[in-house]
Amino acid sequence: MAKIVIIYHTRTGTTKKMAEIIHMEIKNNNIEADIFPVESVKPKQLLDYDGIIIGSPTYYGTLAGPIKQFIDDSVAFHGKLDGKIGMAFSSSANIAGGNETTIISILQALLIHGMIIQGDFKGDHYGPVAIGKIDKRCEDNCRRMALRFIELLRKLA
Amino acid sequence: MAKIVIIYHTRTGTTKKMAEIIHMEIKNNNIEADIFPVESVKPKQLLDYDGIIIGSPTYYGTLAGPIKQFIDDSVAFHGKLDGKIGMAFSSSANIAGGNETTIISILQALLIHGMIIQGDFKGDHYGPVAIGKIDKRCEDNCRRMALRFIELLRKLA
Amino acid sequence: MAKIVIIYHTRTGTTKKMAEIIHMEIKNNNIEADIFPVESVKPKQLLDYDGIIIGSPTYYGTLAGPIKQFIDDSVAFHGKLDGKIGMAFSSSANIAGGNETTIISILQALLIHGMIIQGDFKGDHYGPVAIGKIDKRCEDNCRRMALRFIELLRKLA
Amino acid sequence: MAKIVIIYHTRTGTTKKMAEIIHMEIKNNNIEADIFPVESVKPKQLLDYDGIIIGSPTYYGTLAGPIKQFIDDSVAFHGKLDGKIGMAFSSSANIAGGNETTIISILQALLIHGMIIQGDFKGDHYGPVAIGKIDKRCEDNCRRMALRFIELLRKLA
Repeated sequence: MAKIVIIYHTRTGTTKKMAEIIHMEIKNNNIEADIFPVESVKPKQLLDYDGIIIGSPTYYGTLAGPIKQFIDDSVAFHGKLDGKIGMAFSSSANIAGGNETTIISILQALLIHGMIIQGDFKGDHYGPVAIGKIDKRCEDNCRRMALRFIELLRKLA
Repeated sequence: MAKIVIIYHTRTGTTKKMAEIIHMEIKNNNIEADIFPVESVKPKQLLDYDGIIIGSPTYYGTLAGPIKQFIDDSVAFHGKLDGKIGMAFSSSANIAGGNETTIISILQALLIHGMIIQGDFKGDHYGPVAIGKIDKRCEDNCRRMALRFIELLRKLA
Repeated sequence: MAKIVIIYHTRTGTTKKMAEIIHMEIKNNNIEADIFPVESVKPKQLLDYDGIIIGSPTYYGTLAGPIKQFIDDSVAFHGKLDGKIGMAFSSSANIAGGNETTIISILQALLIHGMIIQGDFKGDHYGPVAIGKIDKRCEDNCRRMALRFIELLRKLA
Repeated sequence: MAKIVIIYHTRTGTTKKMAEIIHMEIKNNNIEADIFPVESVKPKQLLDYDGIIIGSPTYYGTLAGPIKQFIDDSVAFHGKLDGKIGMAFSSSANIAGGNETTIISILQALLIHGMIIQGDFKGDHYGPVAIGKIDKRCEDNCRRMALRFIELLRKLA
């Protein structure tokens, strides 16, 4: 049975809350999913999952240092994540504050692992984004992307 | 039965040759595939295919004008390409001459159409790239990515 | 005396309005500035200016086709724009709809021309962005970036 | 008098060697320059320099974890680097292996600090890149970009 992991870094709690909304939506659809702050997970655990979702606050236009270090360390399993499904999300203080480029920076890492990603023709195209506090727009986008992720996972299972 | 289209822009012929290598590899694996210079195809035709592969020379770090215009015009079918599989490739004059960012610029468009893409843990991670003339490295990468594309297409069919 | 050109593509009028706000702010600071829709300007004219500002709506995550074609055509003057100062701005329908990656796609072209760009530690970091209609946030960012652009132009003159 | 700092992360020594080539070229042109592995420098020290050059190996398509953490920590001096001049370089194992996107990821951070960057119409457009071992092409590009950097620094001093 397919299993998903959600890994996030958080400082103010916004990225964590996004992770929880996505986690809840996945579980409500009867897919097994684990959720970890990046500090509590080892790259090796990535092998246990079919879907990998990574969330990061927007720091200087790319993924946060702890997320990047985790991805750098995952090189020990390079080639083993090939064909898994990936998704990214990001929180940021401002519109045009680097949230899109942060998501792209995570997607690039997933692609280099040989993973499969899907965009969205509606909503937040590259992945869900929070601007400041989480509002309805953000929550809807987190749920929508979670549902699309599950759908892709089921097709590829 | 799954069908693939390869669309390219070319001036010197390099991108065309890459398109032909990819086309040949797909057909050799018994998947139906059409190949068009971007000038000879209408966005509406995209609806007829399960897989869409787009190639562009590297002009100023993003997809060539005619490719971009074609993508802009595809907005008439926005939402209709959702879930199709995509891939990009690029030719460039030099190493570090913008070939990676050109591929990313095409992948961004595919994601915004809701399409599914996959990277490669070996070879040219984001998509095949030619540096100057097509050499064995480039040819191998074109073939490899074509095979991975077919594999993904079959899984999702 | 330093001279600036603002070149934009517009369909709904939003990008044009951003261009006009930037143009006005520059002129109010006693710097000569011309403003053109991309359809009314030739790449050769770029040689007449010290500062080049380019605005594009957000279409599929990168600069609009007509802007890209204009940039592709500017290859006839490759090397001649070296050391000029550049800036980019973008309008988009939605948050996380590709506006940042659109600005980055323009900045990449300016860099490949050897041009000089500056980000902003406040406001819209890569360049001013409109989300939907132009609001006060957008207008302030357009003005702010225009002033920073002038400041850099004066330093480099 | 203008002062430059070069900060790098290295594992195999390639990025370090690029840093040293750039350092040497700057000093040969009678500009004061310091060079540090990222582990030996504190964000606060950035305030002492007019020009900041950052080099990173290409790990999963963006700047290495230690470089990213250093940049994240530099938030304590956000706004204080405004107007400084920046440049980035990267080493990578392969062509199309993520070297361009790694450089862009550093440039994005510099822009968000309000810094000034310049591309190159010749050579490695976004910043010098090594593919595997350092060869003449790479060395020439490091020297060329160092000279361009100095020239910009002198104009802005």
